[in-house]
Amino acid sequence: MRAVRLTRNYTKHAEGSVLIEFGDTKVICTASLSDKVPGFLKGKGQGWLTAEYGMLPRSTNTRMDREAARGKQSGRTQEIQRLIGRSLRAAFDLEAFGERTLHLDCDVIQADGGTRTAAITGAMVAAYDAFSTLVDSKVIAAMPLKNFVAAISVGVVQGSPVLDLDYLEDSGCDTDMNVVMTDAGHFIEVQGTAEGVAFDRSALNSLLDLAQNGIGQLIAMQREVLGLAA
Amino acid sequence: MRAVRLTRNYTKHAEGSVLIEFGDTKVICTASLSDKVPGFLKGKGQGWLTAEYGMLPRSTNTRMDREAARGKQSGRTQEIQRLIGRSLRAAFDLEAFGERTLHLDCDVIQADGGTRTAAITGAMVAAYDAFSTLVDSKVIAAMPLKNFVAAISVGVVQGSPVLDLDYLEDSGCDTDMNVVMTDAGHFIEVQGTAEGVAFDRSALNSLLDLAQNGIGQLIAMQREVLGLAA
Amino acid sequence: MRAVRLTRNYTKHAEGSVLIEFGDTKVICTASLSDKVPGFLKGKGQGWLTAEYGMLPRSTNTRMDREAARGKQSGRTQEIQRLIGRSLRAAFDLEAFGERTLHLDCDVIQADGGTRTAAITGAMVAAYDAFSTLVDSKVIAAMPLKNFVAAISVGVVQGSPVLDLDYLEDSGCDTDMNVVMTDAGHFIEVQGTAEGVAFDRSALNSLLDLAQNGIGQLIAMQREVLGLAA
Amino acid sequence: MRAVRLTRNYTKHAEGSVLIEFGDTKVICTASLSDKVPGFLKGKGQGWLTAEYGMLPRSTNTRMDREAARGKQSGRTQEIQRLIGRSLRAAFDLEAFGERTLHLDCDVIQADGGTRTAAITGAMVAAYDAFSTLVDSKVIAAMPLKNFVAAISVGVVQGSPVLDLDYLEDSGCDTDMNVVMTDAGHFIEVQGTAEGVAFDRSALNSLLDLAQNGIGQLIAMQREVLGLAA
Amino acid sequence: MRAVRLTRNYTKHAEGSVLIEFGDTKVICTASLSDKVPGFLKGKGQGWLTAEYGMLPRSTNTRMDREAARGKQSGRTQEIQRLIGRSLRAAFDLEAFGERTLHLDCDVIQADGGTRTAAITGAMVAAYDAFSTLVDSKVIAAMPLKNFVAAISVGVVQGSPVLDLDYLEDSGCDTDMNVVMTDAGHFIEVQGTAEGVAFDRSALNSLLDLAQNGIGQLIAMQREVLGLAA
Amino acid sequence: MRAVRLTRNYTKHAEGSVLIEFGDTKVICTASLSDKVPGFLKGKGQGWLTAEYGMLPRSTNTRMDREAARGKQSGRTQEIQRLIGRSLRAAFDLEAFGERTLHLDCDVIQADGGTRTAAITGAMVAAYDAFSTLVDSKVIAAMPLKNFVAAISVGVVQGSPVLDLDYLEDSGCDTDMNVVMTDAGHFIEVQGTAEGVAFDRSALNSLLDLAQNGIGQLIAMQREVLGLAA
Repeated sequence: MRAVRLTRNYTKHAEGSVLIEFGDTKVICTASLSDKVPGFLKGKGQGWLTAEYGMLPRSTNTRMDREAARGKQSGRTQEIQRLIGRSLRAAFDLEAFGERTLHLDCDVIQADGGTRTAAITGAMVAAYDAFSTLVDSKVIAAMPLKNFVAAISVGVVQGSPVLDLDYLEDSGCDTDMNVVMTDAGHFIEVQGTAEGVAFDRSALNSLLDLAQNGIGQLIAMQREVLGLAA
Repeated sequence: MRAVRLTRNYTKHAEGSVLIEFGDTKVICTASLSDKVPGFLKGKGQGWLTAEYGMLPRSTNTRMDREAARGKQSGRTQEIQRLIGRSLRAAFDLEAFGERTLHLDCDVIQADGGTRTAAITGAMVAAYDAFSTLVDSKVIAAMPLKNFVAAISVGVVQGSPVLDLDYLEDSGCDTDMNVVMTDAGHFIEVQGTAEGVAFDRSALNSLLDLAQNGIGQLIAMQREVLGLAA
Repeated sequence: MRAVRLTRNYTKHAEGSVLIEFGDTKVICTASLSDKVPGFLKGKGQGWLTAEYGMLPRSTNTRMDREAARGKQSGRTQEIQRLIGRSLRAAFDLEAFGERTLHLDCDVIQADGGTRTAAITGAMVAAYDAFSTLVDSKVIAAMPLKNFVAAISVGVVQGSPVLDLDYLEDSGCDTDMNVVMTDAGHFIEVQGTAEGVAFDRSALNSLLDLAQNGIGQLIAMQREVLGLAA
Repeated sequence: MRAVRLTRNYTKHAEGSVLIEFGDTKVICTASLSDKVPGFLKGKGQGWLTAEYGMLPRSTNTRMDREAARGKQSGRTQEIQRLIGRSLRAAFDLEAFGERTLHLDCDVIQADGGTRTAAITGAMVAAYDAFSTLVDSKVIAAMPLKNFVAAISVGVVQGSPVLDLDYLEDSGCDTDMNVVMTDAGHFIEVQGTAEGVAFDRSALNSLLDLAQNGIGQLIAMQREVLGLAA
Repeated sequence: MRAVRLTRNYTKHAEGSVLIEFGDTKVICTASLSDKVPGFLKGKGQGWLTAEYGMLPRSTNTRMDREAARGKQSGRTQEIQRLIGRSLRAAFDLEAFGERTLHLDCDVIQADGGTRTAAITGAMVAAYDAFSTLVDSKVIAAMPLKNFVAAISVGVVQGSPVLDLDYLEDSGCDTDMNVVMTDAGHFIEVQGTAEGVAFDRSALNSLLDLAQNGIGQLIAMQREVLGLAA
Repeated sequence: MRAVRLTRNYTKHAEGSVLIEFGDTKVICTASLSDKVPGFLKGKGQGWLTAEYGMLPRSTNTRMDREAARGKQSGRTQEIQRLIGRSLRAAFDLEAFGERTLHLDCDVIQADGGTRTAAITGAMVAAYDAFSTLVDSKVIAAMPLKNFVAAISVGVVQGSPVLDLDYLEDSGCDTDMNVVMTDAGHFIEVQGTAEGVAFDRSALNSLLDLAQNGIGQLIAMQREVLGLAA
């Protein structure tokens, strides 16, 4: 696994704001609380959590078009932000923070593989910080936590399983898998794709073992940076 | 698994046209050949295969907005059509049918769970039929086949693993997984999501066993309807 | 006139669902009831009826772009769905079914000329079935019917008037006219276009005679399939 | 028929520029020549003619949203501009002015009923002026004219047929018909709509008689303002 | 300065409607009152004033794409309409005409430089006329006027300062400045751009002197056409 | 003036990448070279320079909607990116770096007033670095520099002129002016807006004096961070 760094309070306005680095991949994750919920939840007494994802046009090796200028988000962007949202909704109890929405914004400043898994892992800490402001100001009685969640990518590169692929490894790999897990070692999401050759059950098992190990380390780092017991 | 029906030549214009039914789920899959390739492939001597997905507004229990009228495809739609495209690109050899594009259109006429897996399974047959027109007219020497692929959904419903979930089962399930496999029993895609409770490794294993069995049956039906040896 | 077939209850979710076939032209018409009305009718105690139209990308001879993917409906599509909506609003009494909206969705599965007239003719039956559910459940006292309506295309092909043009005839015709009439033999819409040569009054009269005859037959079929007296 | 006024050379940049007034309805029609043709005509040695239509936001009684600000043209706008285009393509010989496009822009400055028929009638003169610049500069040998065309609305208001409806008449009428004819008295387009009560064949005939008479007068005015023999 | 002409009541529907001509530049400015305010002002007891700007496609030397057809307003259009709105909000007291919105629509019929300054100067008169209808009908007690405002462009052309640039001068100038001032000789907006060579403080001063003089004349014309004492 | 910090090589992929901080305002400016030019410059042997601007959704005090998700850039965004582009095109000689485009992306990570002036000032350094890569690799013979440019905001806050307004000052100020100047002390852009009270000539003069002084300091910092003689 590449060097991981989590920097809390990275920007000053958001209720939670984290810079997460997986090697050269850098993602700013902010968590913003609002007092509104989407229409389908109005009056139900529960909250919502949603995520958006973006990349700066030159966060990548060659410049990409700016999605705001093109007038739409790519399918890839939407796929990723839906994944981040689902993963974090599995981490918090939506019924325990009132009719509020937590908006998670994950913006990639520099990309070198693994931006979606970095985003999930960083957003967990930003969301925790945002909910802490509600606990600290006694708006809610306790942290609405179900599980810590973190995510990592794994892949088969030239026949061998590799943890936390960088861009070069990712481009050349046969199988690419993103795994989201809880601190109890259970799965939230498993998304494996055969890029070139289809993979068999034993390859799948090796990758999941690798992922489980990596996610354990990531959750330990999340807890440490938040000052929580291991 | 629900009753599966594959009807070839369902509409008359497309090079391949299949109605696939998984129980009450009905999807029209057409395969259209064109002599153009996307810009990034021009002059490379290879072909491309891409997929689009849609639902008729009242294919569902309550009417959905028409995406063409709203002016954009939902994130879910884009996610599904990207999945169909990737799955079918794993089935055919893109370098073996010249500078052509195969467009797969999967349109849901009636939805009752499992529309994306039905779409992949039906599109396999439609694509096969479309490439057959190139073989029959001697434009290419042989079917550009790598593997047969099919897809099925599996899930944990009230604690038990279930194959090929219908809408009611899907809505109430704890874990929802879509699996795409080859006739060699290898994985093309594994996408598992914990809807409610996170799932552990043994649940994952049960689901994969179930999926593998179901996909075997589906590929047998594909081959049978195409008149190929089992 | 080509063989016409009307299949009720074609799909299972919609309050009304009809497959209509005019020769090789096949259109699914669904009628969906909702308890909302557009803003301009709120609180006025009356209902609304509106229509949308679409074609599957490969319903046609060569594949068309998917409107949902392009992000907008073509002018032709909008013209047709406005025509369907106006025609069916002339068939039903909007003040007789409360503050409800009936959405008609006409989706072309296979196109061979005359899709808009098939759509109107099929939507009539789907709408009747949908309103029947309100009558049957005693939500309204009686079918809010003003007139039966049906539509047919007529045209001058190589100098002769032709009823219900298929695609080949339509492409080659000099004049193309779509006529919508009631069971009383009155006009709802007359839309005639000179494709090549302008047409004179006597050609117009021959075409209207032909259309009137064809629409009489169509309305008889609508009534028969609904089990109503001729 | 209301007072009709045609003012040529209304603005200075366009090859043809006409202000047409039907009573209080005022439409600026400009004709712009370009040296390009749409993709489907490239290399075929023929030209194209296309039309666009717009209304200033406060050309109407109450302000409408600006279509450019809303980001799309309404169905009504598209329907009208398609009608203008078809009508004028019937007036000129597309094969007689080379690979050029004539763009007709019809912008309503003040609306009081009949904007589409005024647009067609004015665009005829603007197009004639634009093609005259090609004849005058000897780019083409002769005016590529097939027929003069003009358009008028007719309707049944409180039981009586009325020519050239203003906004009040149009809003209250039972039947609304737009007719486009040539100087030979032949039809290019007939579009009749029953707004309230369906209309019968004899009403249709009265309306067409009225329209034919009005269009004769309009074509005489077009010729006169262009300095052509009656 | 080119000949300036202001024609009130240019169209009949709007509460205020002015044709303003700066030489060959012609802009229709309409002012429309509505009883609604944007969401952020609801219930605050004050009004709003906003502006939109457009150009007819062939108002310019070569035809431009129609913004409504392209589906979006250009950056230039948005910049100009924001400028018009800010300028006119400085002219009127938003707290003195109740919860109403004044919509200013400035549509360029013919362009020859200076369209935005003509739009501001004409919109001032149209807005005054619109508010007069509220005063005349005693809906408000007095004209909600803060200052008269007018606008002019100035530029350095071949080394010399020039007032009210036409298109040719504007295209060739080194510096282009738009100035909006009040009748008290104070600035509302100063927007100077070096097109070619950067300009120094003394050039800036010459341009501002020129602009101040021109704006004084424009405000005198506005007052005269409105029948107010000089 | 607030503390200003320029960090070169802030991200690793872009040819030029600068983090600029004006107090709490932080903007990432990247400069990306491509070998293409826009259509209107093809074959003319000269280059182009263009800019885009964006804000992370929670760079501001309260979260803004993501422009990519809304599907369009706001008028303010477009106004700013046009200003950045014009300013930087005044800094470099477009005819001196071949048929290339320099894309400047200015993305606000944290906003506290003055984001557009920070963007221009930072983009100057990023562009310089990008062109240096062409000089270093001997693709072009010399830095295509015309002038150094920098930008600063000035305003009248409670009656006194203030340099480099932060968000609080900006919100409360009467006059807000953005000034772009060259190292020769000449103006590229002057954009002054009266937010509340119109401003007179002497206020304008004080503000320009203040801006000139601030810009001198900024250009000195730019040169210093680039290692150039003062």
